[in-house]
Amino acid sequence: MKIKILGYLSAYPNEKAACSGYLFMDKNEKFIIDMGFGTFSRLPDEFKIPDFIIITHFHYDHFSDIFALEYYLKVQKQLGIFQGKIPVYAPEDGFFSDIINKSDVFDYNILNEKTIINKKTFYINFIKNYHSLENYSVSILNADLKTVYTSDTGYYEKLVSFAENSDLLMSECSLYGKYTGKVQGHMSSLESAKLALNSGSKKLLLTHIPAYGDVSILKKEASEIFDGEIFLAGNTGVLNLEKQEENL
Amino acid sequence: MKIKILGYLSAYPNEKAACSGYLFMDKNEKFIIDMGFGTFSRLPDEFKIPDFIIITHFHYDHFSDIFALEYYLKVQKQLGIFQGKIPVYAPEDGFFSDIINKSDVFDYNILNEKTIINKKTFYINFIKNYHSLENYSVSILNADLKTVYTSDTGYYEKLVSFAENSDLLMSECSLYGKYTGKVQGHMSSLESAKLALNSGSKKLLLTHIPAYGDVSILKKEASEIFDGEIFLAGNTGVLNLEKQEENL
Repeated sequence: MKIKILGYLSAYPNEKAACSGYLFMDKNEKFIIDMGFGTFSRLPDEFKIPDFIIITHFHYDHFSDIFALEYYLKVQKQLGIFQGKIPVYAPEDGFFSDIINKSDVFDYNILNEKTIINKKTFYINFIKNYHSLENYSVSILNADLKTVYTSDTGYYEKLVSFAENSDLLMSECSLYGKYTGKVQGHMSSLESAKLALNSGSKKLLLTHIPAYGDVSILKKEASEIFDGEIFLAGNTGVLNLEKQEENL
Repeated sequence: MKIKILGYLSAYPNEKAACSGYLFMDKNEKFIIDMGFGTFSRLPDEFKIPDFIIITHFHYDHFSDIFALEYYLKVQKQLGIFQGKIPVYAPEDGFFSDIINKSDVFDYNILNEKTIINKKTFYINFIKNYHSLENYSVSILNADLKTVYTSDTGYYEKLVSFAENSDLLMSECSLYGKYTGKVQGHMSSLESAKLALNSGSKKLLLTHIPAYGDVSILKKEASEIFDGEIFLAGNTGVLNLEKQEENL
């Protein structure tokens, strides 16, 4: 499995990088988790019609560009290039979920804690986060490897069990260490590292990082708590996750 | 007055360019008209807190990134860098206008045909377009120069009067000539040129152009009808509009 990071900034994008969005792919499937500001234009043309899409929650920095994809697919349909509908899994929020449900290019599926996406080579399940809006962490099993993506959340104990023995923990890291505990519903570098440590995760990707300040500090702060390998999103465009080589 | 084109593509952005968004500025004021996909990250830092914002209509390729600006301003507020609210003029659509109205960083103002924005050196008024959603063309008077931005619209006679004697007509050009009359609520290169010709406009900027095909064709097609100067958005990042020199 490969993971292409389409964007990794929290809140707002900048000239160089987009907000949250990740393309997961193996030889059987390609799917996207989250489509924040700037992610659509970073999606290579050959992946612009994914097998399915997961939106973890309806904060704009995680979903705004799904409507760029919608407009793209509508134009492709008008031009006779695309037919059918792309399945979208997202929480039922009473507005944006309705817009997706009514779209002629999307097939809406309610996302909640009971949702399981079971494909040939991917097994995907969810846990409800601690956040200001209904929001889910995602576990992705592929070729006996476990990847957990936290989306946006404060630290909570059930997430530790959910992320247990992850080969890769993609943890949100919205806050510098000094802000730990000062912003509800998000984690700092120190809490991301604590989650990696307590869950027994092998590798940690710090993502959903601030668009301001010196982000290299985040990795330094996390490495004081977690002694596994730590990646800071931005340095790493495509992650290769394979059992044999472990060449992340 | 200068106009920085933040984005000029219709429907969806690509790696190189954003959707609709324009920054207008003179020494007194700076304001933005429309904030489609990809425009926020192209807004220079010194213009990220504009004097006001106009959203001509609530199609995502014209407004999605206003929420990137909202999140940016919220973070600046948390960091103690920004205070107050930015005035936003937008049609009342019952949902997105309510979101803007409830925001703690925006001051919402209803936009309709009666709206006049009268600033020290800018006089701005509106006409209701022929489009699938409530939507306005914008006339901007500055230093005795008239600029008209059509936003999205089909060709209609009242727009010809509204755009009369423009020094610069920023016309939507969503369609190649061969699609003239085949898509309601949008203009082709031929209709943009007809609008420029019939309104007696001096210069024509073709914008809101397709994200597919060979867009240089649009300029060729328009030049068969309109013999004034024609600019194709994309070649021109910043337009200088001055009476004396006319150095557009």
